Amino acid sequence: MDRRSFLKKSALGGSAAAAATLAAPAYAQGNRKLTMVTSWGRGLAGVFDAAEHAANSINTMSDGSLTVEIKAAGELVGAFEVFDAVSSGQADMYHAADYYFVGQHPAYAFFTAVPFGMTAQELINWYYHGEGATLHDELGQIFGLKSFLAGNTGAQAGGWFSKEINGPEDFNGLKFRMPGLGGQALGKLGASVQNIPGSEVYQALSSGAIDGTEWIGPWADEKAGFQEITKTYYTAGFHEPGAGLSLATNRDVFESLTPAQQKIIEIAAAEAHQWNLAQFLANNGAALQRLQAGGVKIMEFPDSVWDAFAVASQEVMQENMGDELFKRVHDSAMESMKASSSWINASSGVYTAQRDRILG
Amino acid sequence: MDRRSFLKKSALGGSAAAAATLAAPAYAQGNRKLTMVTSWGRGLAGVFDAAEHAANSINTMSDGSLTVEIKAAGELVGAFEVFDAVSSGQADMYHAADYYFVGQHPAYAFFTAVPFGMTAQELINWYYHGEGATLHDELGQIFGLKSFLAGNTGAQAGGWFSKEINGPEDFNGLKFRMPGLGGQALGKLGASVQNIPGSEVYQALSSGAIDGTEWIGPWADEKAGFQEITKTYYTAGFHEPGAGLSLATNRDVFESLTPAQQKIIEIAAAEAHQWNLAQFLANNGAALQRLQAGGVKIMEFPDSVWDAFAVASQEVMQENMGDELFKRVHDSAMESMKASSSWINASSGVYTAQRDRILG
Repeated sequence: MDRRSFLKKSALGGSAAAAATLAAPAYAQGNRKLTMVTSWGRGLAGVFDAAEHAANSINTMSDGSLTVEIKAAGELVGAFEVFDAVSSGQADMYHAADYYFVGQHPAYAFFTAVPFGMTAQELINWYYHGEGATLHDELGQIFGLKSFLAGNTGAQAGGWFSKEINGPEDFNGLKFRMPGLGGQALGKLGASVQNIPGSEVYQALSSGAIDGTEWIGPWADEKAGFQEITKTYYTAGFHEPGAGLSLATNRDVFESLTPAQQKIIEIAAAEAHQWNLAQFLANNGAALQRLQAGGVKIMEFPDSVWDAFAVASQEVMQENMGDELFKRVHDSAMESMKASSSWINASSGVYTAQRDRILG
Repeated sequence: MDRRSFLKKSALGGSAAAAATLAAPAYAQGNRKLTMVTSWGRGLAGVFDAAEHAANSINTMSDGSLTVEIKAAGELVGAFEVFDAVSSGQADMYHAADYYFVGQHPAYAFFTAVPFGMTAQELINWYYHGEGATLHDELGQIFGLKSFLAGNTGAQAGGWFSKEINGPEDFNGLKFRMPGLGGQALGKLGASVQNIPGSEVYQALSSGAIDGTEWIGPWADEKAGFQEITKTYYTAGFHEPGAGLSLATNRDVFESLTPAQQKIIEIAAAEAHQWNLAQFLANNGAALQRLQAGGVKIMEFPDSVWDAFAVASQEVMQENMGDELFKRVHDSAMESMKASSSWINASSGVYTAQRDRILG
């Protein structure tokens, strides 16, 4: 909490100083270069693509008035340092998964994914037509950020394991890579949970530093090469039912842009969300078939493990409820999820069940 | 086919003439006003909103270099005349559901929805990461259009009926409003199928000109007021599992724009797709509850009716397969649907089933 209070003060201080020197918006300053730091290794399938797609849209739509230059993880700052870099003004924007920053504020989890939380569709229902975007902005104000959803992996796979998981006790002592509140829930089952940047996971798994990992899903996981190390793959996971990625700009930088440039960033980010979600979902089916053909065993967690995931996830949620903003974001998200999931089940759910029944 | 050949020739002729006079792209012509004709009554819930949302994004992002002026159905041309108006250059762009134009070319059905076809998510997987957008463009070239997806209603409701549907025979002689290939399939069951613009459906249902109608889903249907006329509502439908809306520009107009303006239209349209889909899905759950509380009986079609829908839909598909482009679009869409639905079932499907099992 000390760290957060500090950041809050310094960010607000920064804004006040900026407001004094920028009496009028800095229109017509000429062309601007914006440095985007990311949590992704250069070219990392899907996630780096989302950052690049948003950047390209911004560059083209702004007709040269904005040029976003992308830095991969480690090129300017480390994968998990992008938040502080943009908050402090060292970089202009970041592209990352906001649940990497639950240490800065636990409510950031909701803007990627929380265990037993929203699917990608439920997330955007809440984000664009509920309180999601407003709450994301409220969080951003604490840290001097202006944040947008700008990518989504869809429902993530349970992950890669060195052994089969037949009951919750099999997580006891397991060294596993999983970020965010999902990782905290696995910790409740006795796992030794680590967060490791995407481009370092292969090495960690390969060296035995971890026994298993979740990363994203069949397509991105295949590109990462985990099937070369282990052959046991769980498909549906509890931890990230629709993991959003974010593009966050330094708030002072954002406020210094013209209304057209601001709208360009907002719309480019939102469009990248849809484009990226479709990218993962268009590629996962074929990748899963290839993995299976290559000898990977495709598994589902048994109900007893799902039950244990749920209990552990609820415990993690309850532990964070003391934070007023976390509770407000949680309650808003869960209420929206309930409201939108009922219709999705009654329409799309019934439809696809009938389609599967009749057409196979 | 005569009509199509004629339009093809005149559109290509138009392009050639335009190319001759526009030796260089018409950059820096100053600000442009673009007239957007729509198939929607002014303010029609969801569908007019999507057109307006896309137009606003274009206007703001282009910083005044483009101003899209929206015409509701009937203000410049009728709801179903927008295609020909833009194809001929009478208007600059339209916002509509492309399956209104299966008379122009049957393959347009796939860019809204076909019976037993793709959900909204499957549609965008195909559109942005399969052959969808390319095939939409190939169709557009025939008619001098440059087309983009720019909205989606999600899975549409089965609709409003004057009586309960207990078997396929209950469609015999029923006067029902349903556009596109879904409507043609209902015709196979003996229904007298009509296509009526959205803002005229209430009057048709109210006067008894039709016995029943599908429109969109709980939220838009409630706004249209159908619950004032009939109380029997079927939720899941077979006909439009994820109905896309399109923004199409006259191709010569599009080619006369700068690359930045072209990208602004492309990204604004795509973002409107996501925004609009989330709008419907965020609002449908609560609307269904209100309808139910107001005395509407919420129904599901029995399996025998779904089976009959499937047989009729297959017949309609087969009848169109003689058209080479229809067959190519059909095969591409169905292959993509199969590939992406398997993973969606294995991940999101299993996840939400577990979430429902545990959390209710």
